[in-house]
Amino acid sequence: VRGIVHLVGAGPGDPELLTLKALRLIQEADIVYYDRLVSDAIIALIRRDADRVPVGKSKGDHSVPQETIHEWLIASAREGKRVVRLKGGDPFIFGRGGEELEAVRAAGVDAQVVPGISSALGCAAAAGLPLTHRDHAQSLTFVTGHAKEGGVPDLDWTALARPAQTVVVFMGVGTSAAIAENIIRAGRAPSTPVAVIENGTRANEIRVYGTLSELPHLIQRAGIKGPALLVIGEVAGLPEEAIAHAFKEQVA
Amino acid sequence: VRGIVHLVGAGPGDPELLTLKALRLIQEADIVYYDRLVSDAIIALIRRDADRVPVGKSKGDHSVPQETIHEWLIASAREGKRVVRLKGGDPFIFGRGGEELEAVRAAGVDAQVVPGISSALGCAAAAGLPLTHRDHAQSLTFVTGHAKEGGVPDLDWTALARPAQTVVVFMGVGTSAAIAENIIRAGRAPSTPVAVIENGTRANEIRVYGTLSELPHLIQRAGIKGPALLVIGEVAGLPEEAIAHAFKEQVA
Repeated sequence: VRGIVHLVGAGPGDPELLTLKALRLIQEADIVYYDRLVSDAIIALIRRDADRVPVGKSKGDHSVPQETIHEWLIASAREGKRVVRLKGGDPFIFGRGGEELEAVRAAGVDAQVVPGISSALGCAAAAGLPLTHRDHAQSLTFVTGHAKEGGVPDLDWTALARPAQTVVVFMGVGTSAAIAENIIRAGRAPSTPVAVIENGTRANEIRVYGTLSELPHLIQRAGIKGPALLVIGEVAGLPEEAIAHAFKEQVA
Repeated sequence: VRGIVHLVGAGPGDPELLTLKALRLIQEADIVYYDRLVSDAIIALIRRDADRVPVGKSKGDHSVPQETIHEWLIASAREGKRVVRLKGGDPFIFGRGGEELEAVRAAGVDAQVVPGISSALGCAAAAGLPLTHRDHAQSLTFVTGHAKEGGVPDLDWTALARPAQTVVVFMGVGTSAAIAENIIRAGRAPSTPVAVIENGTRANEIRVYGTLSELPHLIQRAGIKGPALLVIGEVAGLPEEAIAHAFKEQVA
């Protein structure tokens, strides 16, 4: 029996946002290695007699080193098992799926990738926040707010400051003050709308709206500490909630 | 009875890449308005006694004007129907979902958005092409190669020419020569790897690999004319197919 590794995107958290293929694969798998970002409701859909191995990976908490994950995936496949590596969002957008695919294939093990709803797309849909818009955003950029070595990443702030585009920052809660400051200094208006979405598509979802200059304050006031998305751009002012928020601020 | 409109992403084409929610909604809908980019295999999953209304929208062929689509969605919901507006990929990434959501809600009709696997994510997974990578691409930008008024869009070529990022161009087949030229002139290496993916995740998928300087030639040689994705950046050189292609070119 030949084993195989499927790197599978679990989407943002709502189990209904799994793809049909992801559901089939977690029900066929003999063993599932999953990130902490994968929701309990999704873990509950794994075949009951499959082995379930959490491999950590909340921000700053790499309980299992990346190289060890590679070794486990390879070893399980070599035992002839159907292995699923289940990752929050999409495996190829800030998910280190590229590194895992390379490692597994370099060991001569079959591997396939199944896309997932990126948390950016899931959160945007839930909020009614279009990431591109013919009148407001002709381009869309995803960046990580968390550098490889920790701290603020070395981003092209001038490019991120251009108008008529949407910037989505993954893992940017801890560095939000520096991100807002750098983008404003590079020329984007302090009044540019922003949205912060924590636990998007889940029961405990929090969404807050405001402007770029008040970004770190918004996050602090809402008590957001975990993985959240920052959406920066005119489109963040379009949801009804954003309009209601801006109106309330104006009246107050 | 109160009607409702769901704007639903159908993903890149493979019916297994529908979300569970999208499948449920197209099986509950009374009427489905769908784009030409939605695959036949997905159309076949719509509830058999639902009305199915194609509204065109292949590139440059807007068989039904956008305003008419809005009117139809609103009218159907006002008849108390469960309306699905089914769109290729994700509704909020170059899908005009923002405009449709605004129009429907402005008419006082309930509307919700269901995300889909963006064609960029679907094609990347199928090709084993990581869109971000810790060593090669710390940011990911989606742009459209097709201007509102037709022709080459007014993009920030300097930003797109930065190294260590991935640029995905939607609807860029017709303008690929100008896109490659502008990005190279702004400073990106002519040898930057590129991939062109047509009909990603479908049986008739075509993938070709090469360098930025040969982008229009690659497209022409492969006979790609329809909607396709251009992926520009070091990550486009990572798939095994890309490595095999580069080796063949070197030997020839």
